[in-house]
Amino acid sequence: MKRYEQLAEQIAELIRSGVLAPGERVPSVRQARRSYGVSPSTIFQAYYLLEDRGLIQARARSGYFVRELARQPLAEPGSSAPTATSTEVDVSELVFSVLGSLKDPATVPFGSAFPSPELFPLPRLARSMAHALRDMPGHAVIADMTAGNPDLRRQIGLRYRVAGVSLALEELVITNGAMEALNLCLQTVTQPGDLVAIESPAFYATLQVLERLKLKAVEIPVHPREGIDLGVLAERLANLPIKACWFMSSLQNPMGATLGEAQKAELYALLKRHQVPLIEDDVYAELHYGAQPPRPLKSFDDAGLVMHCGSFSKSLAPGYRVGWVAGGRYAEQIARLKLMTTISPSVPAQAAIADYLQHGGYDRHLRKLRIALETQQAAMLASAARHFPAETRVSRPAGGYFLWFEFPERVDSLQLFQLALAQGISLAPGPIFSATRGFRHCARLNHGHPWDAQSEQAMAALGRILATL
Amino acid sequence: MKRYEQLAEQIAELIRSGVLAPGERVPSVRQARRSYGVSPSTIFQAYYLLEDRGLIQARARSGYFVRELARQPLAEPGSSAPTATSTEVDVSELVFSVLGSLKDPATVPFGSAFPSPELFPLPRLARSMAHALRDMPGHAVIADMTAGNPDLRRQIGLRYRVAGVSLALEELVITNGAMEALNLCLQTVTQPGDLVAIESPAFYATLQVLERLKLKAVEIPVHPREGIDLGVLAERLANLPIKACWFMSSLQNPMGATLGEAQKAELYALLKRHQVPLIEDDVYAELHYGAQPPRPLKSFDDAGLVMHCGSFSKSLAPGYRVGWVAGGRYAEQIARLKLMTTISPSVPAQAAIADYLQHGGYDRHLRKLRIALETQQAAMLASAARHFPAETRVSRPAGGYFLWFEFPERVDSLQLFQLALAQGISLAPGPIFSATRGFRHCARLNHGHPWDAQSEQAMAALGRILATL
Repeated sequence: MKRYEQLAEQIAELIRSGVLAPGERVPSVRQARRSYGVSPSTIFQAYYLLEDRGLIQARARSGYFVRELARQPLAEPGSSAPTATSTEVDVSELVFSVLGSLKDPATVPFGSAFPSPELFPLPRLARSMAHALRDMPGHAVIADMTAGNPDLRRQIGLRYRVAGVSLALEELVITNGAMEALNLCLQTVTQPGDLVAIESPAFYATLQVLERLKLKAVEIPVHPREGIDLGVLAERLANLPIKACWFMSSLQNPMGATLGEAQKAELYALLKRHQVPLIEDDVYAELHYGAQPPRPLKSFDDAGLVMHCGSFSKSLAPGYRVGWVAGGRYAEQIARLKLMTTISPSVPAQAAIADYLQHGGYDRHLRKLRIALETQQAAMLASAARHFPAETRVSRPAGGYFLWFEFPERVDSLQLFQLALAQGISLAPGPIFSATRGFRHCARLNHGHPWDAQSEQAMAALGRILATL
Repeated sequence: MKRYEQLAEQIAELIRSGVLAPGERVPSVRQARRSYGVSPSTIFQAYYLLEDRGLIQARARSGYFVRELARQPLAEPGSSAPTATSTEVDVSELVFSVLGSLKDPATVPFGSAFPSPELFPLPRLARSMAHALRDMPGHAVIADMTAGNPDLRRQIGLRYRVAGVSLALEELVITNGAMEALNLCLQTVTQPGDLVAIESPAFYATLQVLERLKLKAVEIPVHPREGIDLGVLAERLANLPIKACWFMSSLQNPMGATLGEAQKAELYALLKRHQVPLIEDDVYAELHYGAQPPRPLKSFDDAGLVMHCGSFSKSLAPGYRVGWVAGGRYAEQIARLKLMTTISPSVPAQAAIADYLQHGGYDRHLRKLRIALETQQAAMLASAARHFPAETRVSRPAGGYFLWFEFPERVDSLQLFQLALAQGISLAPGPIFSATRGFRHCARLNHGHPWDAQSEQAMAALGRILATL
């Protein structure tokens, strides 16, 4: 990282942490020279970068100020309040009708689950693919199916170690994306009819998998900043025969919450006390905006209870379908189940990613990607404040590419979804994120695509629809 | 195909069909000139080719004769005789212990499920991969996950049409190999506890999937040449609440049987009368030795009852993990289940295969592959006749790369497996192919690897072990 990028990052952290509040003046060039010991040109380059990212703005003859998203920024939503009982899941039809709406490439993809492919180093990955296939010994196409590409396993293990998680490589099972990992983990630790604790709202695919495996959901409230309600979870674990938990402890989809370290420690202790296995879906881990990656629950796991699921689909290689699970005490069962289900993820895709991780500059790519996503988040937040009703509430996740909107109670997001779609705009309506079809006045919007005039117009159009509902 | 290759193929057909019997003289050069109207050099080239393939042999000063595999070629096995009741399946531990034995690359891979990677055009496929990735639009990595690569779908559809099967492209679901297809199909048409009719012996992965999904097996007898016993199947369908069938009607694994067309028509009529869906596992279809591909049951399907599963893993691209199912009336349910399980097979792998099918010369590769496999089959048959006990029986499939051996009753193939493994030779013992652990004196041997001195020594070593048992 260049000096001016470092400086920009330092100031961005001050803004994120609230030390510099919206509307407050950032240090003048003279102050910054004194504080950081850098040249005026470095300071200007850093401020230009922060201005580009939407974090600060210049005012004529007054210098730079922390950007106010709008005169009245939208408030944050409160905690969710799901029912206390377990629920049979039946959301698939609704989810498929929403997913079907995303097929038209002309639709503004606020409802998409993926960021824009433009943000990924696909040409560089293609070079890694060519390189890997040229060097691949013939027997590897067979041998790598059972255990996974050995270089890829080492590289994933290395990233855990750098993140401060020590992991036996034997724990790793390479999968067809995190989706297969999650399916395999659930099948390993549950039987049809069992109770599984999930967050509310939860990623809709979780609900679909529970439905498919005939599992019942116990929905735990989530706060958009604090994360899962540990008090409620403790109560449910004490009173219900919960066989497994499926949580996203960092950058939760769709609300965006990241649990603090103390909360994570408490959550792990709770699970360990009850000996309930946790499937930790951590696919957004690499998309944190802050300087430090959030620590996974897996890092607390001294009993092999946590199955930590990751993927390259959202951070590097969409469509390659390479993910993994560090399966703790369940690793061997998961590996066997994988052999019986799909045998293996694609061997060339594994080899290409392994080569990229070694030679492609993954960390450099991730820095750029995080900045793009943070910039786009700021743009969507500002646009929402301009166009959406003033009572609208919105999350402010510290990473990822989703915002969770809570509209005024009168808004029916399924109706909003239909009306928006008629204007060529997709979104993910609240009820697909809940077994009980709650969150009727909520929606998840994707800001994973470069912000442009069309995005702004789409937000304005949504605002007009919201005004009529 | 060159003229001499055509001639060789014509004569090979005469040998395969028995018109020319073992030990019989093939036409002299003079006769062949008259019969086929070709030059002597074309005839000699054709005979050299047939000699290479092990189909004919020269005798000094007497010309060419159809090769006798041995003085006393081994006889064929008879029909299997499974129990008449349904059986809960519990074979996974045994299967995994056999699969585990294959990990050491120094082991002679007679127990492997795959042919040698040397037989596949991997460098040419790598060029197709590079070409496909260069031309791939960014949005395709996301869009192709839902529906599959459109060029690949068209190419697969085209191969069906050339084979005389008309298929609506909407029926096609691209999957992570045939293994995922088979899993998805079974989950689509059954519930835990249901009865599924399968062949006996059956591919062990079938048994594992039944076990995993808590389905019960109704095992139907198979004859190594005639295929599944339709009389028994009719009786079982009439008397048991069978919810689905899972059959390989061509080049059945492990016995190698291919049903005749009349039998296929009868089988389909039977299923249609009972309205029982069929999962047709047809992954060896492209590996037929004869001039014509065997006709799939799917070609009779006018009611959408057949889910026809194919794959490129055994014919072109091992490790790429690209297969498909033509799902008939179940296609949409299968597609949705796939989205909930793994989302999609690898998009680059799909694109590479699509490019290869368009530009790589698939049919030319298949012709070479079939000749290699047929040559290796002849070598293994001849070697078995030299080294194995004279009472040994062996199948003679018209394609693929497996032989099914029935040893004298005193042989325990699990013991044979252990003793062989101690000498660095793997094999697939009979009991892994049956829910009732039958076939104790049988084994499947893989001849998918180029035959060499090591193969011959391994057969001799197996023969010595067999003699001691």
